[in-house]
Amino acid sequence: MHVIIDTHCHYTTEPQALHQFRDKQLAGLADAARKPASTDLGIPDDVVRKSVEPQLALQKERSIDLTIFSPRAAGMAHHVGTEATSHEWTTLCNNLIHRVCSLWPENFAGVGQLPQAPGAPPANCVPELERIVNELGFVGVNLNPDPTGGRWSEPPLTDRQWYPLYEKLCELDVPATIHVSSSCNRNFHHTGAHYINADTTAFMQLIQGDLFSDFPTLKLIIPHGGGAVPFHWGRYRGLCLSLKKKSLLDHVMNNVVFDTCVYHLPGIELLTKVVPAENILFATEMLGAVPGIDPETGHHFDDTKRYIDQVSDLTAAARQAIFEKNARRVFPRLNRRLAKRGYAGAEMH
Amino acid sequence: MHVIIDTHCHYTTEPQALHQFRDKQLAGLADAARKPASTDLGIPDDVVRKSVEPQLALQKERSIDLTIFSPRAAGMAHHVGTEATSHEWTTLCNNLIHRVCSLWPENFAGVGQLPQAPGAPPANCVPELERIVNELGFVGVNLNPDPTGGRWSEPPLTDRQWYPLYEKLCELDVPATIHVSSSCNRNFHHTGAHYINADTTAFMQLIQGDLFSDFPTLKLIIPHGGGAVPFHWGRYRGLCLSLKKKSLLDHVMNNVVFDTCVYHLPGIELLTKVVPAENILFATEMLGAVPGIDPETGHHFDDTKRYIDQVSDLTAAARQAIFEKNARRVFPRLNRRLAKRGYAGAEMH
Repeated sequence: MHVIIDTHCHYTTEPQALHQFRDKQLAGLADAARKPASTDLGIPDDVVRKSVEPQLALQKERSIDLTIFSPRAAGMAHHVGTEATSHEWTTLCNNLIHRVCSLWPENFAGVGQLPQAPGAPPANCVPELERIVNELGFVGVNLNPDPTGGRWSEPPLTDRQWYPLYEKLCELDVPATIHVSSSCNRNFHHTGAHYINADTTAFMQLIQGDLFSDFPTLKLIIPHGGGAVPFHWGRYRGLCLSLKKKSLLDHVMNNVVFDTCVYHLPGIELLTKVVPAENILFATEMLGAVPGIDPETGHHFDDTKRYIDQVSDLTAAARQAIFEKNARRVFPRLNRRLAKRGYAGAEMH
Repeated sequence: MHVIIDTHCHYTTEPQALHQFRDKQLAGLADAARKPASTDLGIPDDVVRKSVEPQLALQKERSIDLTIFSPRAAGMAHHVGTEATSHEWTTLCNNLIHRVCSLWPENFAGVGQLPQAPGAPPANCVPELERIVNELGFVGVNLNPDPTGGRWSEPPLTDRQWYPLYEKLCELDVPATIHVSSSCNRNFHHTGAHYINADTTAFMQLIQGDLFSDFPTLKLIIPHGGGAVPFHWGRYRGLCLSLKKKSLLDHVMNNVVFDTCVYHLPGIELLTKVVPAENILFATEMLGAVPGIDPETGHHFDDTKRYIDQVSDLTAAARQAIFEKNARRVFPRLNRRLAKRGYAGAEMH
């Protein structure tokens, strides 16, 4: 019995009460009198339920069994306010994801955001990482490689400031998805430049460094098909060699996977041609990253399952790896949950 | 009679005297006593000649007839020193390109750098643009979309601050290649992240804006295959629609071309599949952007002609457009020169 796992969706249909809280929270930075009175959003279960209906409808329509679900990426906005702002906001956003996952435990598995903030040591995020995994049952976390929102004024991912977080990720056996948030830099459109640039940037940082010598079991997901990397696979293979590293596959790809948030067939064809199938996770980033219907196909841009189904060169085993097996390897806590529910483990395929 | 035009090469084998000047120039920022005594580099013709021999040898080996040649991109370093530093350095670098082009007028056509500097209005670059085109006979120019070297703290390309430069480009009928320089941001490796990110960023800025309504004849080259854009062609088509613009082809691609600095066959296959052939310029960025031999093919990564030759789907007309015709359309001053030399014009094909 197979499961199709969408590894990258954000909660973009959140109840209005969450947005209202955020407005008050940020207004409170300028005028303490406007601070929200309480962190209890007072959202009843049926409002949470209703808010996720569009997601559930698309799951069904596209034959997706389970969605790995995290707070809206652009909403994290770690560059806004103080570390305390980020912490309060993060807690609320993660708790709301937990409510969705508790209401539909068959349909969703949670991934959290972290209370990052410019200038704050990433080690400060360890308690929230422990809470979301140990108390809320989340299976992964989104890690923002640029908490400055497009100013890129913090150290790269290979800097030792991040090590306490990597240690905890390894200890808890959860992966991190490298995902920036909104951009306060007018040069960078968030979904059109900042997201894709961040993917490319993170990958190149991993080539330059030797992070996986220090953390051989660390697992990182680079979303949006790995940014520009597969298109420039020759460039990255060449740079890896000219920097005197091992081959790209040996140096980076034992610990890194890309997802399939690439919104046209030729892109998915390239991805599956140059990147080994075991390094690819099925994902859609629905709803909303790239909304609408492609006039060239008559189908939604973000219906990435259609593209994968159309790649004629993929073996059944590769397809199975992309849709299920790799996700169960990269998210071991999800794998254990699925095994308990009677789905044969990744090892069995 | 056909000409094969490599539209993107930098002078990366410059005589040592140029580097020595630069060291003294920058040392002079800290200690005026160390300033270079003269801007006369004292480089004899035979040293210039010898320095370009590797480039000429590769031209011959790869059957390239003409190279569009500009100063080392990473060398521009507009973020270093003052506007006066940039102006002095730019003049020297452009003059050296002019010497190469004068020594081998059949083999090289010049493209210049601009004396950009953070905080300095781009309009200040107009006199140097006029000089390199009218006095040195250059056919194009490299325009740095981030003169802050990876801090990205200046306005986007659609900002009106750039308009005087665009007006002059249109008047002189020369294209601009959007090309960043070195990175002073430790997050961004220059050739592995900053260059590719800048290409992607510039393209998205053009989608967000309406620059070509104001400058219908402006021609921009986005190098390195257009950054991440062709791989995410569906994303950009979708974003263009969701931003209520015309289709991507109508909104941007009448004025923008990509080059073929993509260092593996599957990347070139994708590029030529999703991007119309008239929007692609042959280019290699040799020597040095991605040095070395690809162990998978036994050939140099940057021998991009081999990849194009291997794309089986390309018609003879498309191949001709990529190798010659498009370059002659985008660089009209080069086209006129070639026509004078007896090569039938682009219009003739």
